[in-house]
Amino acid sequence: MRRADSAALLTASAARRGGALPPQGFQAWWEGRNRANDVEVVPIPFKEMEHWRFEEPSGNLVHDSGRFFSIEGLRVERGGGAATAHPIINQAEIGILGILVKEFDGVLHCLMQAKFEPGNVNLRQLSPTVQATWSNYTRVHGGGNTPYVEYFRQAGRDRILVDVLQSEQGGWFWRKRNRNMVVLVTEDIPVYEDYCWLTLGQVMDLMHVENLVNMDTRTIMACMPVDHPGDPDDAALARSYASGADEHGAALHPLGEIVSWFTDAKTRCDWKPRLVPLNGVEGWSRTGDEIADDGRRDFRIIAVRVGAATREVATWTQPLLATREIGQSAFLARPIGGVLHFLVQARPEPGLLDVLEIAPTVQLPPTTGALLASAGMPYVEQALGDRGGRVRFDAVLSEEGGRFHHAQTRYRIVEVGEEFPVRVPEDYCWMTAGQLMELLRHGHYLNIEARSLVTCIHSMR
Amino acid sequence: MRRADSAALLTASAARRGGALPPQGFQAWWEGRNRANDVEVVPIPFKEMEHWRFEEPSGNLVHDSGRFFSIEGLRVERGGGAATAHPIINQAEIGILGILVKEFDGVLHCLMQAKFEPGNVNLRQLSPTVQATWSNYTRVHGGGNTPYVEYFRQAGRDRILVDVLQSEQGGWFWRKRNRNMVVLVTEDIPVYEDYCWLTLGQVMDLMHVENLVNMDTRTIMACMPVDHPGDPDDAALARSYASGADEHGAALHPLGEIVSWFTDAKTRCDWKPRLVPLNGVEGWSRTGDEIADDGRRDFRIIAVRVGAATREVATWTQPLLATREIGQSAFLARPIGGVLHFLVQARPEPGLLDVLEIAPTVQLPPTTGALLASAGMPYVEQALGDRGGRVRFDAVLSEEGGRFHHAQTRYRIVEVGEEFPVRVPEDYCWMTAGQLMELLRHGHYLNIEARSLVTCIHSMR
Repeated sequence: MRRADSAALLTASAARRGGALPPQGFQAWWEGRNRANDVEVVPIPFKEMEHWRFEEPSGNLVHDSGRFFSIEGLRVERGGGAATAHPIINQAEIGILGILVKEFDGVLHCLMQAKFEPGNVNLRQLSPTVQATWSNYTRVHGGGNTPYVEYFRQAGRDRILVDVLQSEQGGWFWRKRNRNMVVLVTEDIPVYEDYCWLTLGQVMDLMHVENLVNMDTRTIMACMPVDHPGDPDDAALARSYASGADEHGAALHPLGEIVSWFTDAKTRCDWKPRLVPLNGVEGWSRTGDEIADDGRRDFRIIAVRVGAATREVATWTQPLLATREIGQSAFLARPIGGVLHFLVQARPEPGLLDVLEIAPTVQLPPTTGALLASAGMPYVEQALGDRGGRVRFDAVLSEEGGRFHHAQTRYRIVEVGEEFPVRVPEDYCWMTAGQLMELLRHGHYLNIEARSLVTCIHSMR
Repeated sequence: MRRADSAALLTASAARRGGALPPQGFQAWWEGRNRANDVEVVPIPFKEMEHWRFEEPSGNLVHDSGRFFSIEGLRVERGGGAATAHPIINQAEIGILGILVKEFDGVLHCLMQAKFEPGNVNLRQLSPTVQATWSNYTRVHGGGNTPYVEYFRQAGRDRILVDVLQSEQGGWFWRKRNRNMVVLVTEDIPVYEDYCWLTLGQVMDLMHVENLVNMDTRTIMACMPVDHPGDPDDAALARSYASGADEHGAALHPLGEIVSWFTDAKTRCDWKPRLVPLNGVEGWSRTGDEIADDGRRDFRIIAVRVGAATREVATWTQPLLATREIGQSAFLARPIGGVLHFLVQARPEPGLLDVLEIAPTVQLPPTTGALLASAGMPYVEQALGDRGGRVRFDAVLSEEGGRFHHAQTRYRIVEVGEEFPVRVPEDYCWMTAGQLMELLRHGHYLNIEARSLVTCIHSMR
């Protein structure tokens, strides 16, 4: 059903927005790519993994090359002596997430990829032109080249529209960042069979299709300096986009105040995270098939065998971080003085480089009982409940399928009315779309969930 | 001599710029503060330190409270297996460096402090209103209150002109950041005897006096959104200030290109720094009086006893990091298209949160033989030599006297002509004053030496 949905959407979008479809038609291309699924992903016991082993005495799960990533332990000490610990993915390399863009008949198109990842619920998702770890594109694993990566590595500076380091899930990754890039090409470039030119409008329309636009596409799209692609009939939204870096604009808080609010939250945060041996993580144990918490509520580390003809290496085994539930990330939106504002939260996550980043109004992890445990947390009812306000965006989308197994998040944007209090607790702040985009020119402000939601704002209707 | 110089300068400056001097006159106040020097700083053997000890088995030098800071080891691994190690100051807390500002007769004044620090070459320097570690202002050491700190901790958001986390010396500190703040007051506030209202122009004039304006004042001043305080007759400089965030301004590179250049440099950097036990640092040894490198070229860790009536605690002992030479930090400046540009460098320092920050054109550490070892490094001759160009700023200024003993840096800005090549090596980039200030709205872009030099730009004449 999902594939049919997306194809219908695209056709409608192309007709409405005048995006030039590729000669063979997107629908045929996408269905063709999915018919060709000569791929299978099978859970295996850890002992059947090739080139991966548990290193002693740490118990860390590592690759023989010393590259790619490892599963280690993380311990967080907080003020007052409280401490928590859990496994974490340590992937120190900076990868490239890149989209090539080109104008056709005056309309900007993005070169998108129907990319398979082993952890995807549906095998293929709409992905950036390039999605490559340093190990990938420098060919540590002896596989094929990463197509198009040379356009990003050798781009002239005036062709680079976006190039900024952004974080990924701070609960699951230790200080992982990727280079989010958009590069403009003017020359003819070959289009391989897993790739397709789509307009920005088409990609935005596809954002509403369940598990189609992947996480890496979403974070790059969030960083793009787009000019109000949201609902064209919404004046409060248009003004929200227009209110950015200007210190004396229509926003509730000038940008300097927002930076000050964020600085203050960082000063108050007393989390002290550090890597520890995986063997030393209390409350978690390893069986032959998984590493899991004793309460069986949090994520698990599993191993899979992947057979695929379309990736850099034809067949391989690897660990994945598997979730038990669907996570929740939501923005509350409210017009303030005729300008739509979004409510953000300064939220600590132990794996983030500076611990604190700007997060959605409500962000619940995909753990068993998270919703129940959130009772009393600010804004949960309004953001996730049925009677909170006007739902401007609501779709279940996937997180990174290269490291996570079936990790999904429900993204929602709920607009509340002027009766909703403007005054918020000290960890929260109202920002305009333009201000969110202004901060996205720099790294380490918005976390990955907030960046996904910025792309949801772009696609609101 | 230095005191007399500074007083003369101030009088001249006050006359020229119309800054309202405090009733008793700055000169009398400053000389009075220095006559009152009931302070002495005496080097002592480590074993005479109170509340400080070498913890076993790490050999780290720690305080009994577990607070303040510690001296630990740092090891940096680089690509290809090379590694270096040295001691480092670990001070995890975020302190406040704050200046109160107020308008008198339409002129903005800064509440400056004649502050003693044990490592100062001249005991007192012109310091911010507040310069307090978290331990200080929450009174861990049982001392007196930090005057004026409540104006920063309880400031209404609309009164906060600057509030941003900035790094300090990445070769000497492990991920230290301070909150750089400027807060506007309109009400009457008491002026204690170590404090004095000075105009921005007065402080800028004092920048030319050797070892007078301290490091903490310089970093805050760099972050202030000032409007071209540099030489008023210099059109290229005025245009440099005017060219900031605008993507289509007169700057050689739009700001997005500069962020991309910085992102690229971070991606190429393969330094992996981590804390290690001080006992495990090879090539360094501890005697009864100091911790020093075997080559006796780098800094030393020493201990001092301080007797002072004017600080939070009347007498105390503490470690200091003592330098052997004077460091060098210089900007080359060049008009490009009629706009003055400054040449910056993306430079790794192991203690910085993200390893790489934007540094001066030339930055030489205060180690024995640093100048000799710099032969062949780009731009050293032009920036530090006698015949490089027009010297726009040249003064020896001190680094933080609370942690460093007699640490001084010669700051220079040398303007070269249009015959000087615009094309630079990949780790270098030309930026305008406005662009430097735009990046200073955010943390972790400009390192402490580059920020000192931005304040030197403000004071150029």
